[in-house]
Amino acid sequence: MNLLLLEDDDFVASDRVRLSGRRLKHMLEIHQAEVGDLLRVGRLGGLMGQAEVLSLSPDSTELQVQLDQPPPAKLPLTLLLAMPRPKMLRRILQHCASLGVAELILLNSYRVEKSFWQTPFLQPEQIRHNLLLGLEQARDTVLPQVRIEKRFKPFVEDQLPTLLNGKQGLLAHPGPYPACPRAVTQPLLLAIGPEGGWIPYEVDKLCQAGLQPVQLGERILRVETAVTALIGRLF
Amino acid sequence: MNLLLLEDDDFVASDRVRLSGRRLKHMLEIHQAEVGDLLRVGRLGGLMGQAEVLSLSPDSTELQVQLDQPPPAKLPLTLLLAMPRPKMLRRILQHCASLGVAELILLNSYRVEKSFWQTPFLQPEQIRHNLLLGLEQARDTVLPQVRIEKRFKPFVEDQLPTLLNGKQGLLAHPGPYPACPRAVTQPLLLAIGPEGGWIPYEVDKLCQAGLQPVQLGERILRVETAVTALIGRLF
Repeated sequence: MNLLLLEDDDFVASDRVRLSGRRLKHMLEIHQAEVGDLLRVGRLGGLMGQAEVLSLSPDSTELQVQLDQPPPAKLPLTLLLAMPRPKMLRRILQHCASLGVAELILLNSYRVEKSFWQTPFLQPEQIRHNLLLGLEQARDTVLPQVRIEKRFKPFVEDQLPTLLNGKQGLLAHPGPYPACPRAVTQPLLLAIGPEGGWIPYEVDKLCQAGLQPVQLGERILRVETAVTALIGRLF
Repeated sequence: MNLLLLEDDDFVASDRVRLSGRRLKHMLEIHQAEVGDLLRVGRLGGLMGQAEVLSLSPDSTELQVQLDQPPPAKLPLTLLLAMPRPKMLRRILQHCASLGVAELILLNSYRVEKSFWQTPFLQPEQIRHNLLLGLEQARDTVLPQVRIEKRFKPFVEDQLPTLLNGKQGLLAHPGPYPACPRAVTQPLLLAIGPEGGWIPYEVDKLCQAGLQPVQLGERILRVETAVTALIGRLF
């Protein structure tokens, strides 16, 4: 946790918060905070700055906060991801929040196991929790938008073309395609398939909707590794 | 497992292997292999190709192999990594093998907890196991070299300058440094610090040894994320 994230409910005055639970525990056990210490804080969805520890007990703490810095810019990136297996989803949510992905869309695909959609990690509070961990790590205050699309065809036919308005659309897929570009500055939608890849029908539909296939070399990467390596390369 | 890796001991003739254990289990449960099937295989440290399933039982299988393709080229990269926490080490070993890192050096640092060096994941057979998982994922046959350096100062003073012969040396570190370069083609040594970063003394010593500090933006990434994002950007 490199940033203590404050939520609206934490504020007991315009410049003062009261915290308990996970964040207090972290302050006590990891930061070993004491009264008078200055901590790096941010208001969820808002500015970042510093907070001074005014009081501290095993049950609660009060901080005086001064928020005056904007959070880092988000990447102009919508990530369209075939729903990964649950343990990997959890880490990908954290990675995406840390790396500054603006929007994440979890899409069904033929090779997505039906059971993946049953995971508790898709509950809104679990998605939010893992995104918050990523923001705290990277020092950002703005949650990525997450959408869940369980029907491939209606999404790709009816919604994807509109989503691509004003964006470059790339489909990372192994094959005889151009190499993935580097150092993109314009808004981008990047599609990454499931373990085993999109099936040919899906590749065709995604390309018809306006995505351009690109490849990343001979090596077959796990989805989690591919997401981070592609973002590193693209931005 | 996108490649079935064969070891010297598996060969019962020059073009025939007998397998049991983990790889047989994977063939039966995941590939649902049957006699006559063709599988993608590679010989550890050698060529890749195809194998035909000649026989199959719950205890062992025999394959006829034909090896005629070189493995993908390694990245010209030596990764100098402050020893990460054990669970992350395991994943980083897999990522490094998948991404094609040629050499990985695990180095002590002030902010590395002493307990990290006690992890069973540092046992040679555990390191090898996790590297093999990465090679099987990416379809590669050549194990990265892994070195363990538990003493920072003697390594950086006495060995690092020699290691840097003929290589560009980069130190990824937050600060007012040039942006990390992209699309490097020459041999590279890249140093990445522990959670919390190298201490100033260590930064000084690494720079004196010939590393050039570069930064990757405002966001503080977990070591695991930084490794993959930097490799994606650099190569």
